[in-house]
Amino acid sequence: MKFYILTIFPEYFSSPLKVGLLGKAIERGLIEVEVLNLRDFAQDKHRTVDDEPFGGGEGMVFKPEPLYQAIQKVKEMDPETHVVYLSPQGKLFNQKVAESLAKHKSILFICGRYEGIDERIRAHFVDEEVSIGDYVVFGGEVASLVVIEAISRLIPGVVGRKDSIDKESFTSGLLKYPCYTRPREFLGYKVPEVLVSGDHAEVERFRRLSSLKITLERRPELLHTANLSQEDYAFLKSLLEKQRVYLFLLHYPVKNKEGETIASAITSLDLHDLSRLGRTYGLKGVFVIQPLSDQREIAERICRHWTEGFGAKYNPTRKEAIKLVKLFETLDSAIAEVERECGEKPLLIATDASPKRSYITVERLRELLWEKPIALILGTAWGLCDEVFEQCDYFLEPIWGRLDAYNHLSVRSAGSILIDRILGLYSFWKK
Amino acid sequence: MKFYILTIFPEYFSSPLKVGLLGKAIERGLIEVEVLNLRDFAQDKHRTVDDEPFGGGEGMVFKPEPLYQAIQKVKEMDPETHVVYLSPQGKLFNQKVAESLAKHKSILFICGRYEGIDERIRAHFVDEEVSIGDYVVFGGEVASLVVIEAISRLIPGVVGRKDSIDKESFTSGLLKYPCYTRPREFLGYKVPEVLVSGDHAEVERFRRLSSLKITLERRPELLHTANLSQEDYAFLKSLLEKQRVYLFLLHYPVKNKEGETIASAITSLDLHDLSRLGRTYGLKGVFVIQPLSDQREIAERICRHWTEGFGAKYNPTRKEAIKLVKLFETLDSAIAEVERECGEKPLLIATDASPKRSYITVERLRELLWEKPIALILGTAWGLCDEVFEQCDYFLEPIWGRLDAYNHLSVRSAGSILIDRILGLYSFWKK
Repeated sequence: MKFYILTIFPEYFSSPLKVGLLGKAIERGLIEVEVLNLRDFAQDKHRTVDDEPFGGGEGMVFKPEPLYQAIQKVKEMDPETHVVYLSPQGKLFNQKVAESLAKHKSILFICGRYEGIDERIRAHFVDEEVSIGDYVVFGGEVASLVVIEAISRLIPGVVGRKDSIDKESFTSGLLKYPCYTRPREFLGYKVPEVLVSGDHAEVERFRRLSSLKITLERRPELLHTANLSQEDYAFLKSLLEKQRVYLFLLHYPVKNKEGETIASAITSLDLHDLSRLGRTYGLKGVFVIQPLSDQREIAERICRHWTEGFGAKYNPTRKEAIKLVKLFETLDSAIAEVERECGEKPLLIATDASPKRSYITVERLRELLWEKPIALILGTAWGLCDEVFEQCDYFLEPIWGRLDAYNHLSVRSAGSILIDRILGLYSFWKK
Repeated sequence: MKFYILTIFPEYFSSPLKVGLLGKAIERGLIEVEVLNLRDFAQDKHRTVDDEPFGGGEGMVFKPEPLYQAIQKVKEMDPETHVVYLSPQGKLFNQKVAESLAKHKSILFICGRYEGIDERIRAHFVDEEVSIGDYVVFGGEVASLVVIEAISRLIPGVVGRKDSIDKESFTSGLLKYPCYTRPREFLGYKVPEVLVSGDHAEVERFRRLSSLKITLERRPELLHTANLSQEDYAFLKSLLEKQRVYLFLLHYPVKNKEGETIASAITSLDLHDLSRLGRTYGLKGVFVIQPLSDQREIAERICRHWTEGFGAKYNPTRKEAIKLVKLFETLDSAIAEVERECGEKPLLIATDASPKRSYITVERLRELLWEKPIALILGTAWGLCDEVFEQCDYFLEPIWGRLDAYNHLSVRSAGSILIDRILGLYSFWKK
């Protein structure tokens, strides 16, 4: 593998390329790195490589000609060279991109500085634009080091023990398990017993479960593409059971079209849709709050049809869902039931289509999931009354419109979307 | 700002810290960097800093004592030092994390190598664990350079022209616009006229719109937290109009519980829920396919009530939604209508709760959004028949269960979740 680095700071690279496994790989000829000084391709005696941007503004832009000349020169030496521009506008670099880049025999990295390179070079002479992350560094030099390191590790012979690559983060699709070495006890902190047990199968199991746990907690999205066994799923399920989410469907107090406080009627399809949603996403309960006793009686009769009556036999999957539905006369009694089931009060999360007050993001709510039971409160009719908002701990960021301010969703749609946004990241149980 | 770097390769850092603005900032005393050799804290004459992992396996682990001694030493010099461990298991580094780290006066970076550091140090003596991206490099050395560069840029005086920081990627919340410099014409490629017009307001506008466009195409999630003006929204809307998504609700041919082909009945709430969803997410149409003429007549009467009858006055927002609904006798006639409206055939995307065949991911479908009109086909009753699958271009990844295989959602829930997964990334229109 041959790497060309095009930079105005060739001296940047003198020490990092000599160190550790990368240095050894270069010494052994497994990798060749040639650092090119962009100034050598300038066309005036001052060796000018940058100029002011058209349209004005601070900062300088790399001129097209020297870049073009340098690219041509490299292509003369290695016609198949893949040209990579390192910039914050590029696609995010990750292990998959590293694997794809490792297939090339020769790569030229263009290190930008200042305001970047002339757009015409980027648009017409660059094969791939890559960003190492959502942050700004001084230039492409450190980024090219990162990319070169990641690619070099994948080249056969560079990392001696294949095992070390297969088990590391992102290669296995999971974050790595914690490692321990001597002494067995350090400042009172002990190594887990299983690691010193000598039972290899148990050690492997401990490491696998540790990897799964740390991945679930820190980077659950990685689990969507990881290879998971039935044992893995069972373990992950036991962890996910600790997320205790309840859906509350509130029929009182809610607002009517005129903003007055009312009690709304139960919609039979709500019971079906929200309980099916609840069962799919592993909610602990779908609690319907309805002060009118005749309304509750209708709902209970519907539920009994599906849990005990003809419906239970006709459609057992529906039975499983409807079992989650419980009817309550007041919001307080529904809260009390969560407290009884979980041993602690739930966090009350209000929802609404309008951002009346400061809201928390879904990302923040996901962190709270691991700490306390959550009751996500959906309003019927024209939405929740102020008194409900005041009782709640948080208000969740609304679902925004895509083309304009219109965001009038049914409670069934909004509930489905919000639950998917909160819990969909943890939904990777594939049939 | 003082940075300590703890490494077994102190020589790694000799050249990169001398170059460019970072080198100047160090020379001028704005930043101080002290590289510590972990081996200096070893406790035997061989200066051993690593050992085999408990539990066996390839690779070595950094021992706890030398790390502990080094951390203690740094804390003696700077008691407030924030201890950062660079590892792939850490939280993803980004500009926000850089800003938060820049608030410390002294930071110690621990550079891992091999299999990482002893877990007891990580768990009890590290304040923050940071990963520069989803890829594996040889060690924490290059990662610490990345983080030091990103933090250093934020320290007053390091980057002279404040303007250059404010307009760069991630600082403004958008990707940066393309830059051009002399010559005005290069190999036949010209600089956009506006940039040489001398009209500063037009230049600013061109740059802003270029930033918005590149951000929408490459990193739409950044727009959710960017500050957007009404003009920005209007421009983004004109781009988003190019995504032409239709929802098809199929009543024939679908399956019943026994797997036989049937025509199902229309559910009135489907028309409401899916059209409200469609209007919120800016769909071009909600097409209901129903071969039975009396069923179509009922649906059309419902729609007329909301678009022309009493409902249109009673609830104008509902009118706006229901206007998207069109009734068709066959799937082919619905496809023909999309072709008439868009001038080209839509890609047909089948949906189902079971992964019967190979599927495409939502990410892939999002790329297709920019290329062609999309018809997302939802089945009623027990789902789409095989003949529909065979007619479709792609099958979309199902919505998986969270705790187990159960994923029996209503068509209203599934449609809402899928549309949000596909288009929610582009839904940032805040009231």
